[in-house]
Amino acid sequence: MSAPNASTAIARVLVDELARTGVNDVVLAPGSRSAALAGALAEHSGVRVHVALDERSGGFCALGIARAAGGPAAVVTTSGTAVANLLPAVVEADEAGAGLLVVSANRPPELRGTGANQAIDQTKLFGDHVRWFAELGVAEDRAGAPAAWRSTVCRAVAEARGVGARPGPVHVDVAFREPTVPASDDGRTRGEPFRTPLDGRADGEPWTRVTRTLAEPEPEELDDLAARIAAAPRGLVVVGETTAPPEPIHRLARAAGWPVVAEPLSGARDGELVVAAAPYLAAHEGFAASHRPDLVLRIGRGGLSRALGSWLGADVSQVLLDPHGAWTDPERALSGILVADPARACEGLRRRLDALGAALDPAWLESWREADAGATDALHAVLDATDAPSEPRTARDVAAAAPDGATLVVGSSMPVRDLDLAMRPRGGLRVLGNRGASGIDGIVSTALGAALGGPGPVLGLVGDLSLLHDANGFLLDAEAQRLDCTLVVVQNDGGGIFSLLPPVDHLPSEAFERLFSTPHGRDVADLARLHGVPHTRVDRAAALPGAVGEAVAAGGVRLVEVRTDREANRALHRDLQAATARALDALP
Amino acid sequence: MSAPNASTAIARVLVDELARTGVNDVVLAPGSRSAALAGALAEHSGVRVHVALDERSGGFCALGIARAAGGPAAVVTTSGTAVANLLPAVVEADEAGAGLLVVSANRPPELRGTGANQAIDQTKLFGDHVRWFAELGVAEDRAGAPAAWRSTVCRAVAEARGVGARPGPVHVDVAFREPTVPASDDGRTRGEPFRTPLDGRADGEPWTRVTRTLAEPEPEELDDLAARIAAAPRGLVVVGETTAPPEPIHRLARAAGWPVVAEPLSGARDGELVVAAAPYLAAHEGFAASHRPDLVLRIGRGGLSRALGSWLGADVSQVLLDPHGAWTDPERALSGILVADPARACEGLRRRLDALGAALDPAWLESWREADAGATDALHAVLDATDAPSEPRTARDVAAAAPDGATLVVGSSMPVRDLDLAMRPRGGLRVLGNRGASGIDGIVSTALGAALGGPGPVLGLVGDLSLLHDANGFLLDAEAQRLDCTLVVVQNDGGGIFSLLPPVDHLPSEAFERLFSTPHGRDVADLARLHGVPHTRVDRAAALPGAVGEAVAAGGVRLVEVRTDREANRALHRDLQAATARALDALP
Repeated sequence: MSAPNASTAIARVLVDELARTGVNDVVLAPGSRSAALAGALAEHSGVRVHVALDERSGGFCALGIARAAGGPAAVVTTSGTAVANLLPAVVEADEAGAGLLVVSANRPPELRGTGANQAIDQTKLFGDHVRWFAELGVAEDRAGAPAAWRSTVCRAVAEARGVGARPGPVHVDVAFREPTVPASDDGRTRGEPFRTPLDGRADGEPWTRVTRTLAEPEPEELDDLAARIAAAPRGLVVVGETTAPPEPIHRLARAAGWPVVAEPLSGARDGELVVAAAPYLAAHEGFAASHRPDLVLRIGRGGLSRALGSWLGADVSQVLLDPHGAWTDPERALSGILVADPARACEGLRRRLDALGAALDPAWLESWREADAGATDALHAVLDATDAPSEPRTARDVAAAAPDGATLVVGSSMPVRDLDLAMRPRGGLRVLGNRGASGIDGIVSTALGAALGGPGPVLGLVGDLSLLHDANGFLLDAEAQRLDCTLVVVQNDGGGIFSLLPPVDHLPSEAFERLFSTPHGRDVADLARLHGVPHTRVDRAAALPGAVGEAVAAGGVRLVEVRTDREANRALHRDLQAATARALDALP
Repeated sequence: MSAPNASTAIARVLVDELARTGVNDVVLAPGSRSAALAGALAEHSGVRVHVALDERSGGFCALGIARAAGGPAAVVTTSGTAVANLLPAVVEADEAGAGLLVVSANRPPELRGTGANQAIDQTKLFGDHVRWFAELGVAEDRAGAPAAWRSTVCRAVAEARGVGARPGPVHVDVAFREPTVPASDDGRTRGEPFRTPLDGRADGEPWTRVTRTLAEPEPEELDDLAARIAAAPRGLVVVGETTAPPEPIHRLARAAGWPVVAEPLSGARDGELVVAAAPYLAAHEGFAASHRPDLVLRIGRGGLSRALGSWLGADVSQVLLDPHGAWTDPERALSGILVADPARACEGLRRRLDALGAALDPAWLESWREADAGATDALHAVLDATDAPSEPRTARDVAAAAPDGATLVVGSSMPVRDLDLAMRPRGGLRVLGNRGASGIDGIVSTALGAALGGPGPVLGLVGDLSLLHDANGFLLDAEAQRLDCTLVVVQNDGGGIFSLLPPVDHLPSEAFERLFSTPHGRDVADLARLHGVPHTRVDRAAALPGAVGEAVAAGGVRLVEVRTDREANRALHRDLQAATARALDALP
C-alpha cells in the first residue's frame, strides 16, 4: 500500500469506517474525481465492491442490497450528473424507509461555480429526500481530522439505519483536490504525504457505536387498545409492506378471532387466517356491506387494492401500528396511530387479550373464510381455464414455484397487483419491491442487489417496460453474474396497466396506443443476447412452473419470458371480477 | 373534443399556452396521473409530441431539441420517481444555460405525505438547479383561474429562455385530482363540467408576450477595453462553448491581428485565424514561454485542454465577454468580466479598433500560424501513418465527412477532447454537446433530440459507455425513427479516458481494469439489433468517411461502429505529443 496523500488518507478512512459500521457492500460507479475512493475500496478486505456502469442502476442495486440485508448499503460516484442520476433511488429509499448511503466525490471549493469540468452544485442535491447531508471538506493534515471523518461516517450510517427516526437515504459529499491518487509513474507519492495517524478504534469497533431500540409501547396505550379489540369481535387486521415479523401479528389476530388481510409485501401472507381474495371481497357490494368491521388494526403500508381502500374509509374505526409514526393513510381514515414496535405492540396486545378473555365471534371468522374460499376457488378456476399464459396466473405460479428460502422481487406496476390478486398464501418466501414511490425504475438492479445482499436465490417478476427501463442494471460487473437471479418477464409489449385505467376509454385508440400503451416492439431475446443472459420463453401457462424451477436450479442470472396480451388481460380481469362476484353471490 | 372537467381544463390551457409561447415540441413519458396532459397534447395541432419510455432519456431528448432549436422544449411526466429521473438533464441544462421546461403531474395535496401510490414530495424537487419553480394547485372552476395558468406558463417559458438572467431549466408542477380524464365508457363527462371559459388571447398570442434584449455594452467600457486591445498587439482570442455568432468575433480578431483559439463547441472553429493545434502549442515549453500573450479575450466556456488552461493562468491578463455574467473561470485567472452581448461587444470593439488604428504585429500572428501549421501537419501525419482506426482520427474524419448544414453531437468524455485535438477548422457544421456538467449521460437522446429540433442531418460521435448509458434513448417512439441521425460509436470496450489519467499508474492492473476501464463485453451489433437500428462496422480508418457518407445519405437512425484499443490510444496520445513537440522544436 503506497504512502497516503490527503486524498488517499480521507478515502481510506471513510472506507475503513464504513466496514467497521457494518456497511460491507459498496456499489461503485467509475469516475475520475472518485479515484481515491475506488483505490481504497479495492484495498480493503472488509468491503465487497460491485461495479455499476450506470449510476441510476447502481443506486437501485445498493437499495436492493439494503433491502435484502436489512441494513444500509453504499453507492459511490464521481462528481457531476453522476450524482444526479441517483435521485430516483434516493426518492424510493426515502419513501420506503430503506437505508441507502450515497457517497459522492466532489471538486474542491475553488473549482465550484467556475465552469470547471464536471463541477456542479452538489450541496444538498437531494434536498428534503435524504435524512441527513454531510459535506466533508477537502482533507487537511491536522490532528483530529481522521476522528471527524470517522465520526461523520458513523453518524451517516446511523441516520441511514434510522437512529431516532425512520431509516432512509443519507448523502455524504467528499471533496478531493488533486492529486487524487497517491502514486505517480515512478512510484513516488504524489503531493505531500499525510502525517496525521489514520487509525480507527484499536479494537476494530466503529468510532462511535450507535445502538437503538424501537419504541416500547406505553402500557396504558396497550391496555386501552386491547380493551377496544376485546370489545370488537368483528375486527380485521390489514398488513401492508412492513419489516415487522409476521408471527406476533398472526398470534394477535388469532387471539382476537380476526381475519388477516396481508398484501404480498407484508411478509404475513401465510397461515389459515389470511384472506387472499380480500380485494374481491371488498369489491363485492353484498359482502362489503355485511362485513364492515367494527375495528381495523393496520400495520405497514398498504394501498394495492383500490376496492379495499375505499371500503375501509373514515367511517370504519382504524388504528395504525408503526415504529416510526409513518403517516400511511391516503384515505385519511385513521382514528389513531400507535408509534411503537409492531412486534412488541402485538405481543403486548395479545397477552392482554388472553388475560381479558376476548369475546370471540367464531361466525365472523368463519364467514370470511367461506367467502375467501369461494372467491379464491372461482379465481383459480378462471385462471386455469386456459393454457394461454396470463399475467395473474404467471404471478401466482412464480410465487408458488419459488423454492423455500427464496426472495421474490416484484415490479411496481402490474406484477405486485397481480400477486396481490392471485398469490396463494405460503411461507418460506420473502417478497420485496420498490413500493415506496412505486416507480417502474430500477427493478433489474434491485433484484440483482437483493441477490447480492441476502441468502437464497432471487426470483423477479417484472413487466417488459420495467425491464427495458433498467436494462442497464445488467451492466453490473462480472462478479454479479455469479448471482442466482431468475427474472420472469411478463412481456405484453407496452404498458398493460393503462388498459385497466380510465384513459383507455377517453382517447381515440390510435392516440391511446401511442401515448399510453406504447408498444415498443423490442424482443426480450435480443436484450438477453446483448447482456449475455440466458433466455427462455414459455408459451404455455402450464409450462411456467417447470421453466422457473429449471432456471433456479441451473443458477446464475436468467430471463424467463412469458408473452401476454393487453386486451386479453383486460378481459381476464373482468372475468375474474365477475366469477368471484358470482361465487360470493352464491354464498348463504 | 369531449367537454372538459377540471383536469382536462387545466391540461388544455397549459398545452395551448405552451404552443402560443413557441414551445412546440414536447417529450412525453407515459403515465396515469398525467393522463389529461397526454390527452391535451394529442388534441393540439400546434404541438409535436414525442414519446419517451425512459424519463431520463426523455429529459435529454427535450434538451437536445432545445439546443438545436435555440429555445426551450418541454418534457412532461407523471408523478413520483418519473420526475426524479429528470434531474440529470435538469443539472446539465442548469450548467449549460439551456432552456428546458419540466412539467410534472402531481397528486393533489390530500394524497401527499400519506403513503399514497406514487405520491412523493415534488415541491422544489430540483432545488437550486432550476431557474424557477411554480406549483399550480388543483384546477378550480373560478373566474381568473385560466388566466393564472396561462400567465404561469408564459413566465415559466420566459424564465427558461433567460429573461433577465441566464436561460435554464424551469419546473412547473401541476396537481390533478380524479377524474383525470374527461370521458367514461359511455362517453359522458366524468366529474363536474368546467364552466369558466378557457380561451387564451383572441389573436392567438401568448397571454403575456415577453421580449428581452441582451445587455448593450456601456460605451465607456468598450472604449477602455478597445484601448487595451490596441495597446496589446500580442493578444489572443479564446472561444469556448457559446451561442454567440462567430463572425463578429473573427472580425474583431482580424482587426486586432490576434489568433483565435476555438474549441469545437465554439461555432468559431473556421477561418484563417484559427489555431487548431492550440493544446499542443500550449503544452510546448518553448512556444508557451515565447508566446505568452499580453491580453486574452475570452468568450464562452472553455476548459477542454488542461495544457491551455494552466498556460493561461492568473499572470496573463484576461477579460471574459459573457451575456449573463457566467463566471467561467476555473483557473481564477480573469482580471475582468464584461457582461454584455458578445456579438455587439465585439462589433463595438472592432469599430473602435479601426478608428484607433491598432498597432498590429504581423510577426505575432505569423508565428502562431507557422507553429500551428507545423504541429498540425505533424499531428495528421501520425494519425495517417496507420490504417488501424484511432480515436482522434475518427473524430477528425467524422467532422470532415459531415455534410454542410449538419449538426455534430459529441460525447463529453473523450470524443469532444479528440475533436478539440484533431478537428480541422471548417464551416457549415454545428457542433453540440452536453458540456454543462460534462456527464456521459443522455447522449443518444440529445442527438435524437437535436435531429428533432433542428434542420439538417445529425451526426453523433460517442463512446461505447455513453452509448450504453443512454441506450434507452432509442426507445423514442416510431415518429423519431424517421429522423436522420448517424451515431458513430468509438468502441473500446470500456472507459478509455481513464487510461490517460493518473489512476492508471496507481492501482494494480487487475483492479484498474475492473474499477476504471470496466470492460463490459457488450457488442454494439447486439444493441443495434435490440433497437432495430441499422449497424455497420468499420475496420479500416480510411473506410470511415465513406461509411459515414453512406449512412447519412441513406437517412434514418443508424449506428456506425469503429473499434479502437485503449492501450493503443494511450500510446497514440504520447506519439502525438512527441511528434507535435518535435515539429515545434524545429521551428526557427
